[in-house]
Amino acid sequence: MTACPDHPSCVTLLRDYDFAASHRLALLDRTDDENLAIFGKCSSPNGHGHNYRLRVAVELGDDPAARSVDLDRIVETHVLKHFDHKHLNLDTPFFMDRLPSVENIALTIHALLAEAMSGSPLKFVGVRVWETDRTSASTSERV
Amino acid sequence: MTACPDHPSCVTLLRDYDFAASHRLALLDRTDDENLAIFGKCSSPNGHGHNYRLRVAVELGDDPAARSVDLDRIVETHVLKHFDHKHLNLDTPFFMDRLPSVENIALTIHALLAEAMSGSPLKFVGVRVWETDRTSASTSERV
Amino acid sequence: MTACPDHPSCVTLLRDYDFAASHRLALLDRTDDENLAIFGKCSSPNGHGHNYRLRVAVELGDDPAARSVDLDRIVETHVLKHFDHKHLNLDTPFFMDRLPSVENIALTIHALLAEAMSGSPLKFVGVRVWETDRTSASTSERV
Amino acid sequence: MTACPDHPSCVTLLRDYDFAASHRLALLDRTDDENLAIFGKCSSPNGHGHNYRLRVAVELGDDPAARSVDLDRIVETHVLKHFDHKHLNLDTPFFMDRLPSVENIALTIHALLAEAMSGSPLKFVGVRVWETDRTSASTSERV
Amino acid sequence: MTACPDHPSCVTLLRDYDFAASHRLALLDRTDDENLAIFGKCSSPNGHGHNYRLRVAVELGDDPAARSVDLDRIVETHVLKHFDHKHLNLDTPFFMDRLPSVENIALTIHALLAEAMSGSPLKFVGVRVWETDRTSASTSERV
Amino acid sequence: MTACPDHPSCVTLLRDYDFAASHRLALLDRTDDENLAIFGKCSSPNGHGHNYRLRVAVELGDDPAARSVDLDRIVETHVLKHFDHKHLNLDTPFFMDRLPSVENIALTIHALLAEAMSGSPLKFVGVRVWETDRTSASTSERV
Repeated sequence: MTACPDHPSCVTLLRDYDFAASHRLALLDRTDDENLAIFGKCSSPNGHGHNYRLRVAVELGDDPAARSVDLDRIVETHVLKHFDHKHLNLDTPFFMDRLPSVENIALTIHALLAEAMSGSPLKFVGVRVWETDRTSASTSERV
Repeated sequence: MTACPDHPSCVTLLRDYDFAASHRLALLDRTDDENLAIFGKCSSPNGHGHNYRLRVAVELGDDPAARSVDLDRIVETHVLKHFDHKHLNLDTPFFMDRLPSVENIALTIHALLAEAMSGSPLKFVGVRVWETDRTSASTSERV
Repeated sequence: MTACPDHPSCVTLLRDYDFAASHRLALLDRTDDENLAIFGKCSSPNGHGHNYRLRVAVELGDDPAARSVDLDRIVETHVLKHFDHKHLNLDTPFFMDRLPSVENIALTIHALLAEAMSGSPLKFVGVRVWETDRTSASTSERV
Repeated sequence: MTACPDHPSCVTLLRDYDFAASHRLALLDRTDDENLAIFGKCSSPNGHGHNYRLRVAVELGDDPAARSVDLDRIVETHVLKHFDHKHLNLDTPFFMDRLPSVENIALTIHALLAEAMSGSPLKFVGVRVWETDRTSASTSERV
Repeated sequence: MTACPDHPSCVTLLRDYDFAASHRLALLDRTDDENLAIFGKCSSPNGHGHNYRLRVAVELGDDPAARSVDLDRIVETHVLKHFDHKHLNLDTPFFMDRLPSVENIALTIHALLAEAMSGSPLKFVGVRVWETDRTSASTSERV
Repeated sequence: MTACPDHPSCVTLLRDYDFAASHRLALLDRTDDENLAIFGKCSSPNGHGHNYRLRVAVELGDDPAARSVDLDRIVETHVLKHFDHKHLNLDTPFFMDRLPSVENIALTIHALLAEAMSGSPLKFVGVRVWETDRTSASTSERV
């Protein structure tokens, strides 16, 4: 970052979003008892839930009128409408073949937003997802 | 409180606990569409979840060795083991005939702790329960 | 609160809202220097601003379908549209004859919401307003 | 509070202060082992420490120029200079004959501030002291 | 960072500061209506305000007595005295030819601190500025 | 990070832990007055304390059953049991020859965890340690 603040990608903008969702950590080819041994109370059969927080990092382009408003719309359309007030295992197509752990939720949202912003003046950097206020996963050192 | 700090019930001790749970807001005699009209996204059929926070208020007795350690045990035994990593509608007996709204969760925990501390040197005051960091319900003005 | 959780007004529901606003603390019949002596940097002539947080406390009625959705609409219509992204001295009619201090902001919002909820199933209790995360004013011991 | 916002004591102003201090929970007439049995790791002989937070509640008088500046000075002079960056058992006179528990710290600060504000236009209401972000003690339902 | 903790620049020290300020987002060659279309409520003519938070990242030198005290003085002198309790558009020279957006505020403070610490034993790394608790901008991946 | 989310080290998992401890900042070959001049109130002879927060960053391996449970055990065994409810200068061997400043605490914990995880499926990345909610030190740009 030695050239900062002179080069255009110097600044990262970060915005936070919330969603409330249920999930269950369990391997489908194991019994409830086996899953309990592996995942503990996170394998409770009827699921449990969290208030997730999502932080999105982008670089803004040079247009002074480009603002975070567009980011809000992209995140709402491509992430929140699928995740908020949903059961991540049962209501979304993303966790059929992998666990809805906080790491995998972060990877999934990263892929969704990378694609959504591929044709946008916003340059996508990465995400951080909190499952609780003590546990999070990030996909970039800038978020 | 004019007599404070001289009378013994002057001080309220408050301690916070967390639990992660799923719930669904829906009236059982209504259709999914009717529940959607009433409760919005909170009626999503497979449920959703929250990181709940529970604050418990007690008065300590005069024994200098009486400490919050006992409170932790009571809250773990009488509340958290029933609520943490559970689906409140499906895994607990408390919300058969009323909604697992944050108000009713607070009332339920209040009743559980009032009974649990009836034979304890700790004098129970009330609780506050947060469903998100913006929404909570309390059962006493002291918590 | 001894009868809690049995009597209907046992539970207080609290919800938080944000607004960003400018204000200036100054007595109109004083010079800038006199106001500086009284109010310090809060009297800066072009104003300064805060992210205010508003907590509203209500009692819910007995209708199980009555939900906080209505509260959101009332607060948006009667408070936020007047306060959010405004200059409190210049853009609102509320601080013509009194300082837009955090105490007076709390009193003003209390009066607005008390009137707005006078014909509502929600029973208004009071408000708390934060000017910074270290300074707030409340109009009820229940909020 | 039915008369609020009309009567003069309707509004409570709250301000937060921090201090970092050490303490040890132990009864002087017990051995280290006995204290360990009673107080657990809080009895560690060389002490341990916390970032304490202090919230002070006052009512402001009718003078529009009366501001929180005065409160800051009172709290600094009568509390923080004795408590901040100190060992509560060894550096202050307040915990010779009682434990520096969070409840007793709250009672001590309540007494100090009640006396300090007895001749002040600020009307003292009470305090809340946090030992951690999960454990606190309050001396009034308004703080 | 594989060599950490052995090489001298392994550790980044971060300290947070607050300032309360007003700003307005608007292009001077546009009408109020055009600015409203571009910037929404952020273009309100009399401005609005925020509690900004500033996080500064530095590397400390090898002198064990070098402490954050010096950083406080630098930030106070070179940033806070210009920004705190000010209207960023009207009271500072920094936003004559660019918007006082959170990205530009971060870039401006980065440049001020980079120059201020050029002759200091503290090695400046970068800053992060929050406009609200959900929106921030950073000038280094280490802050 | 352009290859993310495809390469295996894309995701960083972060978990937070707390410990309460005392410390004193002073050079042993200086007088109390000299240390006061250098370190201010942080040199108070009987020490003072903080609620420290520790954030640990790791990469998880490819085993879907590998979970943060193991991280908790490692941090408890190798860090918290030595630091929590201790006097860092007097009760630990780590600060004999260097100051228990937040930078050195971070470096010490980094070294302890790097060694502890050298034979673990968890790949250690770095730590961040907060001394107060405004002051922290990190050993990696990813934490």
